[in-house]
Amino acid sequence: MSEAHFQTFEEPEGGVALTARLAAFREELARRKLTGFVIPRADQQQNEYVAPSEERLAWLTGFTGSAGLAIVLMQEAALFVDGRYTLQAGKQVDQKAWQIQPLVDPPPEHWLTKHLSAGDRLGFDPWLHTSAAAERLAAACAKAGADLVAVDSNPVDAIWTERPRPPLGPVTIHGLRFAGEAEAIKLERIRDEINKLGVDALVLSDSHAVAWTFNIRGADVSHTPLPLSYALVPREGRPTVFIDHRKLSNLTRDHLEQSADVDEPDRLTMKLTELAQRGAAIALDNATAAEALNRLITTAGGKPVRGSDPVSLLKAVKNAAEIQGTRTAHQRDAVALARFLAWIDREAPSGGLTEIDTVEALETFRRETGALKDVSFPTIAGTGPNGAIVHYRVTRKSNRRIASGDLLLIDSGAQYEDGTTDVTRTIAIGKPTAEMRDRFTRVLRGHIAIARAVFPDGTTGAQLDTLARQYLWQAGIDFEHGTGHGVGSYLSVHEGPARISKLGTTPLKRGMILSNEPGYYKTDAYGIRIENLELVIGIDISGAEKPMNAFETLTLAPIDRRLIDVTLLGEAELKWLNDYHARVKAEVRPQLGDDATQQWLDRATAPLT
Amino acid sequence: MSEAHFQTFEEPEGGVALTARLAAFREELARRKLTGFVIPRADQQQNEYVAPSEERLAWLTGFTGSAGLAIVLMQEAALFVDGRYTLQAGKQVDQKAWQIQPLVDPPPEHWLTKHLSAGDRLGFDPWLHTSAAAERLAAACAKAGADLVAVDSNPVDAIWTERPRPPLGPVTIHGLRFAGEAEAIKLERIRDEINKLGVDALVLSDSHAVAWTFNIRGADVSHTPLPLSYALVPREGRPTVFIDHRKLSNLTRDHLEQSADVDEPDRLTMKLTELAQRGAAIALDNATAAEALNRLITTAGGKPVRGSDPVSLLKAVKNAAEIQGTRTAHQRDAVALARFLAWIDREAPSGGLTEIDTVEALETFRRETGALKDVSFPTIAGTGPNGAIVHYRVTRKSNRRIASGDLLLIDSGAQYEDGTTDVTRTIAIGKPTAEMRDRFTRVLRGHIAIARAVFPDGTTGAQLDTLARQYLWQAGIDFEHGTGHGVGSYLSVHEGPARISKLGTTPLKRGMILSNEPGYYKTDAYGIRIENLELVIGIDISGAEKPMNAFETLTLAPIDRRLIDVTLLGEAELKWLNDYHARVKAEVRPQLGDDATQQWLDRATAPLT
Repeated sequence: MSEAHFQTFEEPEGGVALTARLAAFREELARRKLTGFVIPRADQQQNEYVAPSEERLAWLTGFTGSAGLAIVLMQEAALFVDGRYTLQAGKQVDQKAWQIQPLVDPPPEHWLTKHLSAGDRLGFDPWLHTSAAAERLAAACAKAGADLVAVDSNPVDAIWTERPRPPLGPVTIHGLRFAGEAEAIKLERIRDEINKLGVDALVLSDSHAVAWTFNIRGADVSHTPLPLSYALVPREGRPTVFIDHRKLSNLTRDHLEQSADVDEPDRLTMKLTELAQRGAAIALDNATAAEALNRLITTAGGKPVRGSDPVSLLKAVKNAAEIQGTRTAHQRDAVALARFLAWIDREAPSGGLTEIDTVEALETFRRETGALKDVSFPTIAGTGPNGAIVHYRVTRKSNRRIASGDLLLIDSGAQYEDGTTDVTRTIAIGKPTAEMRDRFTRVLRGHIAIARAVFPDGTTGAQLDTLARQYLWQAGIDFEHGTGHGVGSYLSVHEGPARISKLGTTPLKRGMILSNEPGYYKTDAYGIRIENLELVIGIDISGAEKPMNAFETLTLAPIDRRLIDVTLLGEAELKWLNDYHARVKAEVRPQLGDDATQQWLDRATAPLT
Repeated sequence: MSEAHFQTFEEPEGGVALTARLAAFREELARRKLTGFVIPRADQQQNEYVAPSEERLAWLTGFTGSAGLAIVLMQEAALFVDGRYTLQAGKQVDQKAWQIQPLVDPPPEHWLTKHLSAGDRLGFDPWLHTSAAAERLAAACAKAGADLVAVDSNPVDAIWTERPRPPLGPVTIHGLRFAGEAEAIKLERIRDEINKLGVDALVLSDSHAVAWTFNIRGADVSHTPLPLSYALVPREGRPTVFIDHRKLSNLTRDHLEQSADVDEPDRLTMKLTELAQRGAAIALDNATAAEALNRLITTAGGKPVRGSDPVSLLKAVKNAAEIQGTRTAHQRDAVALARFLAWIDREAPSGGLTEIDTVEALETFRRETGALKDVSFPTIAGTGPNGAIVHYRVTRKSNRRIASGDLLLIDSGAQYEDGTTDVTRTIAIGKPTAEMRDRFTRVLRGHIAIARAVFPDGTTGAQLDTLARQYLWQAGIDFEHGTGHGVGSYLSVHEGPARISKLGTTPLKRGMILSNEPGYYKTDAYGIRIENLELVIGIDISGAEKPMNAFETLTLAPIDRRLIDVTLLGEAELKWLNDYHARVKAEVRPQLGDDATQQWLDRATAPLT
């Protein structure tokens, strides 16, 4: 196989080697008359993937997980991680220097209150915390009689001599044939929302919102075509996009200037200050706006109005062009998936494949479509016990050989210019046990229950979540993650505000795309997950008394028939499965050039009875 | 049939006859220098059933629904009711004097802000509103530049010359064989909760909480054995029960004094003031505590701590004695139900029965058990189109003859000393249409999905609600009420905090009793509802990875086989139905003395295939 490019498997440096940095950091804090500091795994916009220049937590501690927080005091230092990262953190950091603590229950504030002393001065960088997070820190300090001090410059940066420069990924225009709606129309709709909020201006602190509004994409972070940027949209008059000019070609600058002024990122604070000094009410996004913005507006005499970014909901509802693009992207992705799954069935029985081989092969098959822009996240390829680690990411060290009797769980996705994909399949290597087939079939029944759901307008993801779990519950088992997340259109593969989860309080609207991914994980044994993307559509039902919705499945890939216990399926479930496989065959077979894959597909999609 | 005693069918006085009262009320407001007043349908404790002395809204407006609010301004007056009462309100009040407005969307505060003028003085009685409700009124007044004025005495009472006296229902001891736990033990558990809250004292502003804690019952309001009372439980030392001494015998006073001081209701404010003057933090229940209590504590220098009454959750989890009592109550109720359903099948075909006949007959059959204390709410008996009115209550005027082709919906319940029941059955009179059978079977499938649900510890009612709706949604239909509510143990038939509803965020705990009552209502045609009570129990599942719960059905009454389309049922559903009917027969038949009812029961519970 050719070398994979978008995903690497190296272990970063870590552990005791980094402990000198902690000493240097404490000296820096002392110079600033601080007795402690909080280092979140975050950039200024709370992005999922951050630029290397923002990996302060990893640089200081060695911990490379996608969520976490460190608190350094003069005598103690703690790293807070959630359950999925406890083991990894233990290996990556020097446990003599760092205590490892839970990130959620209890929250870090609990630890803070116990370890701070009266008179302590705890520093934090207000650009790296939301206002809600800053309020929680302030409350914890107040309880201990300590002060929370917002710093002007980050003390990590002061000692991080080889800190990478911020990224300057070139910006591209996301053409109307993909975006489906001109910037001017989007801005009109945003202004309607600004009027509903009754504010004078809206800050777009989420680069996804800027990308969507102005129909641009970028290349600043991994796996998401994000142009790191801000925008300020006043109730009246031209908006301003704040973006490093070095990312813009003449073409993209001209594109932006048709609907906005373009300015450098460091001018955002000046513009906001001017507005605030005139007493303006300025809407800030709860989820992504930095506490620094909130403070700046307040200090200048303006009124920050915190809430949900209205663009988040506009962006989540895809238009006809985005929907058609996503369908095309899935048809293309399906060819790569069929080749990949056929390859696994051919190659795995010899026992020569490893998890990394599968990741590289899948990326190669996707590259061969000629349209791959990036993988939409690092592929999760876990065989045997590694499959039970929900957020497993293979490294050279953890890489496991795929053995007979394993279940191989592969969760992957692609970024194409017309759409973003995300799909999980679980594959039997050799003969699965009766228990594996029972568990797989229960997961499948939950998946089908979501895929077949019919629900009235206004129904939330919370109302559907249980449909995916009911057959697992009957066996006394469950899965400890949501059933589904929103998905962007050549944007983030994890997109709000809707989700299928007991916490999903946003109504599902026609045009939203969500994943449907129930699973089951048996610790130290195997993992199962079946994931398709689903589009919310309206359906006509004879005699219906209200507008009704359903899902159209976008993902096209066979579900492993060897893992299905047909005797557990109801009639309607079996029909769904056979209809789905017939559709996969009809849409994918004509695109396959080679006989071998066609024959594999015929077998993999043959009706079950 | 003998006369029914607990339910009456008279229409109260109303309409134009009452308009003079509105004029007199405005004069009273003018005397008090008020330009408006808010009259909720509420007593001091936000009870569902209120004493006649608290029916200020009905006295002033003529409207007798169980929820509503009036606002009287100098020029305008509005009555706010929810959708189920719009028609009734239109008939009961003088629409020249009163505008009828929605109670929920938009809320009355919306109307208030539009109709108040700057400088207006809107009065309200702080004993009749919760703090949250008072805050909403205050915000609406502030928006309009008006003042919200708390009055010391209610101006309705000033002109209501024939206002009934407050009730003095005798208090009885709820013996340990029914209550299952001594007051002293309950008070220990309450003190644990007080310590968790970190307060100095807890006000029990809910008479249900007082009744549960001190193992007493009363007779102050209809359908719930409520002793109107308050209690104050300090973190340390003896609690005080505030109750009118005329309700107590020597026996009940002695019982109370074993664990509490007993004082007159008007001494509550004095005791609270004393506590508050010492700076005490005092916990108040969000749902039932009057704003007057909140103000009193604040004014005296104390700290009101508003939240959920911890007794609410303790009370909802039934102990072994309460569970056994409830089972016995349902077995007893089942005999009355069987006789009643057999009687309907025998008598209805002649066409001579009316809705009121069925209500009276059912109450009589329950009386014949020799244990009936009250009906647990006014029976809803709606035939044909009346069945589609979700909260229908038959009057002499609305009373409808039961005709062939009707569906008859009967929702009823009983108060027995050992338990409270609530059951709905829908009965085919003559031959039902194919549509009726389709709809009934979809409702039944939803009912069975709840009854058969298996779910992990911590699951909320919101997570189960959709199971009851899924088969209706598939046909484009739904029902516009929750799937189930909590039920008390010889207490309120509607008991919090748990419920099966998309708003039900309380985890379902073992020992809770909830109704399972999906329905379908075709306006102007017919109504369907199938309701059993369910007990949350733990179950053992081989291989389970966490503690799992399920429901044990308490209600024992045949479900009308003539309305079931067996071809729509899955195998597991049919088995549930036949098993349920076999259990009903096994538990009820031996209790029936007469051949005719036994033969009816044999037919009604015969297995379907």
